[in-house]
Amino acid sequence: MGITEIPGGVTKAKGFKASSAAAGIKYKERTDMAMIFSEAPCTAAGTFTSNMVKAAPVIWDRDIVYGGHPVQAVVVNSGIANAGCGEEGMLICEKTADAVSEALGIEKEAVLIGSTGVIGQDIDIEKIKGGVKLLVPALKDTLEAGTEASKAIMTTDTVNKECAVSFELPAKDGSGNVTVFLGGMSKGSGMIHPNMCTMLGYITTDAAIDKALLQKALSDVVPDTFNMISVDGDTSTNDTLLVMANGLSGNQCILEEDGSYQLFKEALFYVCRNLAVKMAADGEGATKLIEVYVKNADTKENARTLARSVVSSSLVKAMVFGKDANCGRILCALGYAGPVFDPAVIQIDLTGENGTVNFYSAGRVQAFDEELALKLLSEDKIHIDVDMAEGTEEATAWGCDLTFDYVTINADYRS
Amino acid sequence: MGITEIPGGVTKAKGFKASSAAAGIKYKERTDMAMIFSEAPCTAAGTFTSNMVKAAPVIWDRDIVYGGHPVQAVVVNSGIANAGCGEEGMLICEKTADAVSEALGIEKEAVLIGSTGVIGQDIDIEKIKGGVKLLVPALKDTLEAGTEASKAIMTTDTVNKECAVSFELPAKDGSGNVTVFLGGMSKGSGMIHPNMCTMLGYITTDAAIDKALLQKALSDVVPDTFNMISVDGDTSTNDTLLVMANGLSGNQCILEEDGSYQLFKEALFYVCRNLAVKMAADGEGATKLIEVYVKNADTKENARTLARSVVSSSLVKAMVFGKDANCGRILCALGYAGPVFDPAVIQIDLTGENGTVNFYSAGRVQAFDEELALKLLSEDKIHIDVDMAEGTEEATAWGCDLTFDYVTINADYRS
Repeated sequence: MGITEIPGGVTKAKGFKASSAAAGIKYKERTDMAMIFSEAPCTAAGTFTSNMVKAAPVIWDRDIVYGGHPVQAVVVNSGIANAGCGEEGMLICEKTADAVSEALGIEKEAVLIGSTGVIGQDIDIEKIKGGVKLLVPALKDTLEAGTEASKAIMTTDTVNKECAVSFELPAKDGSGNVTVFLGGMSKGSGMIHPNMCTMLGYITTDAAIDKALLQKALSDVVPDTFNMISVDGDTSTNDTLLVMANGLSGNQCILEEDGSYQLFKEALFYVCRNLAVKMAADGEGATKLIEVYVKNADTKENARTLARSVVSSSLVKAMVFGKDANCGRILCALGYAGPVFDPAVIQIDLTGENGTVNFYSAGRVQAFDEELALKLLSEDKIHIDVDMAEGTEEATAWGCDLTFDYVTINADYRS
Repeated sequence: MGITEIPGGVTKAKGFKASSAAAGIKYKERTDMAMIFSEAPCTAAGTFTSNMVKAAPVIWDRDIVYGGHPVQAVVVNSGIANAGCGEEGMLICEKTADAVSEALGIEKEAVLIGSTGVIGQDIDIEKIKGGVKLLVPALKDTLEAGTEASKAIMTTDTVNKECAVSFELPAKDGSGNVTVFLGGMSKGSGMIHPNMCTMLGYITTDAAIDKALLQKALSDVVPDTFNMISVDGDTSTNDTLLVMANGLSGNQCILEEDGSYQLFKEALFYVCRNLAVKMAADGEGATKLIEVYVKNADTKENARTLARSVVSSSLVKAMVFGKDANCGRILCALGYAGPVFDPAVIQIDLTGENGTVNFYSAGRVQAFDEELALKLLSEDKIHIDVDMAEGTEEATAWGCDLTFDYVTINADYRS
């Protein structure tokens, strides 16, 4: 009874359809709106940006999800973030929901909204309305429709990001097991940092699960997945991660923290980590994925803090880009992370397909094989292994290198 | 009775001499060692890196300064940091102090040591000894000697950094006032962040002042000067700021927090801020100085946190490099800084020699004159003014833009 990764994204689970459209909101000659629709009303859970400045769609979604209203559709635009737009921003959400509600024949409160792009520019509601008119008749339950939706929400992303899994849960009619699907899509490339990144993430499942447990599973999974990736240390105004569960798989509804809940949570963790790592690898301008694994820390939170500090360090990121085995920078980033530790006992290794190089141990930087280090730093994924030698807790953080292209992309993002 | 900026650095105050030498520790064809010597023993104060991993010279200096031993000389090398080198690192300090002690005929405990450069490489003590032999006979009290010393401690710095001031204090013999000098030099360009940067800073004064008050003045001044600059968010293993006071000006020794103390502290603040801003402006690869002034915050600490968050944001830094008036990023960086505030009341302006542009007010990003914004973003110094409209506290932070050259410098720092 394990979890199997399968092709697909938001349309893999039963009863979910998706579509995309070119509404010309900001981008030309590409799709910039996506819709997800569920045939049946969904239980929803979400986590939202911790930024004091919240985009209008974040406030809209939060009120609906935390208010407990069942949801049935999500509509997303890329290009403009609808953040920092005052009252006007909320009005745009209201009108967007109206248009979707009318076109789909569902309640306005069943419509979730997502926006990503430039902060402070106004969205032209007529373009949104035009987009909705294209999206509704185009809704399809094919995997391709899900893929096209994941492409429409991209901004500086270079690849679309999808993941889906299947697993078995007891059927509600007692007739053995049913297959449950859980799949998702996300976007996010710049302005990415722990505590919900400028990321939009949408996960759909045909599992039946109690709303409070769905939220608990999501909240438990985020600290070790989406909150462990960093591209540039900036936490966006628009971060949103939503899960919609429509129950159409026919499983016995998950009502307590039993084995079914654990398996569901494991599936959710799998998809969230998969999407999170894809976002880190596709960081703006990135050429490499950096994975920092901290083990034997005294507390879970310290393990997370230390791993994130290394993966967020500009100097470590630039060093990886330059394939320069300057391990003092890793040591330095651990040192300023916050947690108290003894530099005399920790160990730092660089590992990869070509072998392992011990950078630091026995209280000092070690002489190492420069040629092997260069080989390891030339791999697509850079794995840094840190042993704190003080406890049993562990955490992994993901990030990417700092490149010329990151600067290029962000020196002129608005145009 | 004000403070006057005058030419000079560490040799401006009476009784201080400096020298520099090319010891070939790592760099070729340039000076890489500097010495400061005081004819009279000095009261010393210092602040040191908060990094858990501390370079050997940091431990050496901290023990002497906090132990209360009077000091008379500082010897500094650039190129290798003597950090992450275990027991060997402390041994290097011991032997360095021995060499200086012997050559100058002073106690070993009167010798402070500074190192800056690559972490984890061993320093060749023979080269240090050779350098000391050159430094001692070259000691001079000229301004030029101070300038040459400030050049010898540079690493990726593109300009040397010096500042000196004079002010008047009551003479100890009651015969009116004497002129007191306070001057300093610092280096630091990369690995720079609040909480003491990879900076070395040395300040000399001929004021007579109680040791505890000297430390208090320094500790009070650092949070609003050196700790308010950021280049890349990395706090180094080697940060050291030292003040040496030899009392040779003939002023009545400052023994309490009276007017003389306040004036002394003001002079110290002036020099520290001047050196800090010079370091921010010379950030690795920087083309512009960014100054963020946060006013009307509810607490001093929140004002500092908000200002530092904006100046540290990679997206704000890249936007300044690209002269792209994407003010949503400033709003975003305030929002994730931590302090709770109401986005509906704050105001963000960009100001400069060419005028002022209101980016954000009345709860939303404002339409602004793009041409004027481009003019302002083309000035050498970018001033961002943030009004929190909730209290009376203020703070200023300094940083620099994120450029291609930053990446180039840090992609291959060791070579």
